[in-house]
Amino acid sequence: MADDENKEAPPAPEEPAISLEPSKTAFVFIEFQNEFTSEGGKLFPAVEPSLKRFGTMENAAKVLAKAREAKCTVIHCPIEFEKGHNEISDRPYGILKGVKDGEAFTAGTWNAKICESMKPTENEIVVKGKSGLCGFASTNLDFLLRQRKIENVVLSGFLANCCVESTMRSAYELGYNVYTLKDCCGATDADGQEACFKYNFGMFSFPTTSDVIMKSIAA
Amino acid sequence: MADDENKEAPPAPEEPAISLEPSKTAFVFIEFQNEFTSEGGKLFPAVEPSLKRFGTMENAAKVLAKAREAKCTVIHCPIEFEKGHNEISDRPYGILKGVKDGEAFTAGTWNAKICESMKPTENEIVVKGKSGLCGFASTNLDFLLRQRKIENVVLSGFLANCCVESTMRSAYELGYNVYTLKDCCGATDADGQEACFKYNFGMFSFPTTSDVIMKSIAA
Amino acid sequence: MADDENKEAPPAPEEPAISLEPSKTAFVFIEFQNEFTSEGGKLFPAVEPSLKRFGTMENAAKVLAKAREAKCTVIHCPIEFEKGHNEISDRPYGILKGVKDGEAFTAGTWNAKICESMKPTENEIVVKGKSGLCGFASTNLDFLLRQRKIENVVLSGFLANCCVESTMRSAYELGYNVYTLKDCCGATDADGQEACFKYNFGMFSFPTTSDVIMKSIAA
Amino acid sequence: MADDENKEAPPAPEEPAISLEPSKTAFVFIEFQNEFTSEGGKLFPAVEPSLKRFGTMENAAKVLAKAREAKCTVIHCPIEFEKGHNEISDRPYGILKGVKDGEAFTAGTWNAKICESMKPTENEIVVKGKSGLCGFASTNLDFLLRQRKIENVVLSGFLANCCVESTMRSAYELGYNVYTLKDCCGATDADGQEACFKYNFGMFSFPTTSDVIMKSIAA
Repeated sequence: MADDENKEAPPAPEEPAISLEPSKTAFVFIEFQNEFTSEGGKLFPAVEPSLKRFGTMENAAKVLAKAREAKCTVIHCPIEFEKGHNEISDRPYGILKGVKDGEAFTAGTWNAKICESMKPTENEIVVKGKSGLCGFASTNLDFLLRQRKIENVVLSGFLANCCVESTMRSAYELGYNVYTLKDCCGATDADGQEACFKYNFGMFSFPTTSDVIMKSIAA
Repeated sequence: MADDENKEAPPAPEEPAISLEPSKTAFVFIEFQNEFTSEGGKLFPAVEPSLKRFGTMENAAKVLAKAREAKCTVIHCPIEFEKGHNEISDRPYGILKGVKDGEAFTAGTWNAKICESMKPTENEIVVKGKSGLCGFASTNLDFLLRQRKIENVVLSGFLANCCVESTMRSAYELGYNVYTLKDCCGATDADGQEACFKYNFGMFSFPTTSDVIMKSIAA
Repeated sequence: MADDENKEAPPAPEEPAISLEPSKTAFVFIEFQNEFTSEGGKLFPAVEPSLKRFGTMENAAKVLAKAREAKCTVIHCPIEFEKGHNEISDRPYGILKGVKDGEAFTAGTWNAKICESMKPTENEIVVKGKSGLCGFASTNLDFLLRQRKIENVVLSGFLANCCVESTMRSAYELGYNVYTLKDCCGATDADGQEACFKYNFGMFSFPTTSDVIMKSIAA
Repeated sequence: MADDENKEAPPAPEEPAISLEPSKTAFVFIEFQNEFTSEGGKLFPAVEPSLKRFGTMENAAKVLAKAREAKCTVIHCPIEFEKGHNEISDRPYGILKGVKDGEAFTAGTWNAKICESMKPTENEIVVKGKSGLCGFASTNLDFLLRQRKIENVVLSGFLANCCVESTMRSAYELGYNVYTLKDCCGATDADGQEACFKYNFGMFSFPTTSDVIMKSIAA
């Protein structure tokens, strides 16, 4: 995506010289689960074009490696539902209806597993309770970040304009310095992904890229 | 906006035959304040083209009149800051930086007042505490809705892709039946407004219009 | 506990003729885990006197059986931490310091398991994400209740004046009709348990007993 | 209150050598409103004995003066309701029933005003939206604290075992270092006030006194 596209966005923040102190920085990887990321996942065909356009999986893996090396906090944020999807209403609408009807992200299945390239190590924290879209609303994510005195939150994952965007909006409101990685996200519509970055992400975060963020981690 | 545009959106919900029981329905009018709506408001020039394209102010006034007539709960949700904008960080970024730098929505000024055409009556509830973007995050809105056992929340106002969208996302997550009125919103970029309705609103609400919603209030 | 003790409490609500519609009622069983409930649990010695004084385990089992029989929603709300308790700050204080220092409720151990007499069936919902004290603050509990349109929440478990009380306070604020079962709770100090029921529980719930609640489920 | 009373409380934290950095410290004064604090207030007769026993009003005024002098953040947290108390359900129970039936804390009246001795200065922040008991649940308090990067929260006010305690429980869960001032609170039952400090406050805060906290503000 050309950088000047973002310059047209109404409330775009000035690009700061980012410098992230590892002890105060958490990388939150949202829903890098086979259902989205891998051949055979139910939603893989829908997001595949965006993964290809942005190089999402390669970029995300590099960012994860760098975050580990720099000893930033690494947090994995999967979504899952017990068989039957009883966590969701009997008469759902919107995106949760799709999730329930499609029996997506069923706990204990290969589909709900975090994919091989983004697999958590033993000490990394896996967020629990994500039954909704926002990474904070039904989970212990804020609790975890507060206990570690995290100030910077770097977001990537799926779907750019659904869970990543909801998580970004809440993180901003909660007072974190939020960074969003344009080339480490996926969506069911690559144009929609660009649109949400163009129109929305600058209001609630510093939209940036994997290259920039990796250079920004303080030595 | 042509209806078939919405049909292209990935997780669009089936259009239900909407029927809203007044005692369980709240119309939440977000930031219909002079700063946005009226000649002389600091943000009026930026949103004026979208107001014209969608007929926002006329449509919203009609919806408000109908909601009152049908005895639905009417809730006004303004944003405001004390002189000095001390509620916001000394080093803000994103949309709150624009609000603070521009000294927008200062409490006690004409700019922060709800505009004449949408003025609350004495018994209508005015949400308090909105210092952020989401209508729920820093306010008593959820408290008010729960105390009244509201199930349906109808959203309109400003900005479509900022406060309205954040409020919609949270309302969905909180289990309400959310309705968003495409022709009763404004934004600083009318194309952005259409994009967010196209790509995002169907995941978290039933996007609809003033005409449809007025017919949907149960007699 | 004599009933008239409660009548002295300042803001005691009038005892209503309770009638609970099963489809709108959830029984939330908080931390009936071996760590508290069973010989060998680290906190069992501390709570044992209160279990004996109130008959907690027998009463809770009866309530669970009745809730199942009446097809109320049954929700289990355990707390757990991964080995190392990395969810908690490196410099904790208060109750979480005790939990971390004592390595209590470690995920995957017998100690963290829900005890035999209160064991969830396959379809019952187990809340996820509870890393803090309030049953709502870091979990999907509110999400689950809202998706099911639950109006009545019946609370029991551990510790009466810690997690049960925090959960009660939040549930009240969230607009639920909250019922607390005096004889189905445990605490590290049975006098403290009586004091919190006497002084606090009537402000945020209808304090009642297992016998009364079982009779109150609508036929 | 004798210090050794607190030592009996089960999860009492070790008394730290408190040192509060003013730029990271907020004093939150809860409901020092005429309704509670002043001759003529509806709830004054009920809390008067506790004010006398602890010297609440004198101590709180001294703490406020010291917090101002040291340039800590000072936040006032009143509760209020519009005439008619429409914010509260038509069929309330618990403490909110008492508030509504008694028409307490009506906005715009002398009763709801913060009392003379604790009156906010022009630059001090007054929390908005408090319709419930917890100082966080329906307000912009957390937003304000996060925007200022506050780490230490010092609580005092009314009622010790109602709003102060709920606010303390939430503040702890939100990761703040919480300090509660035993001799700057009031309650409708002075014994209940001592009981909640004894049994509950050590789990969620460092219970301390006005004298200690004033000495703890870093020079």
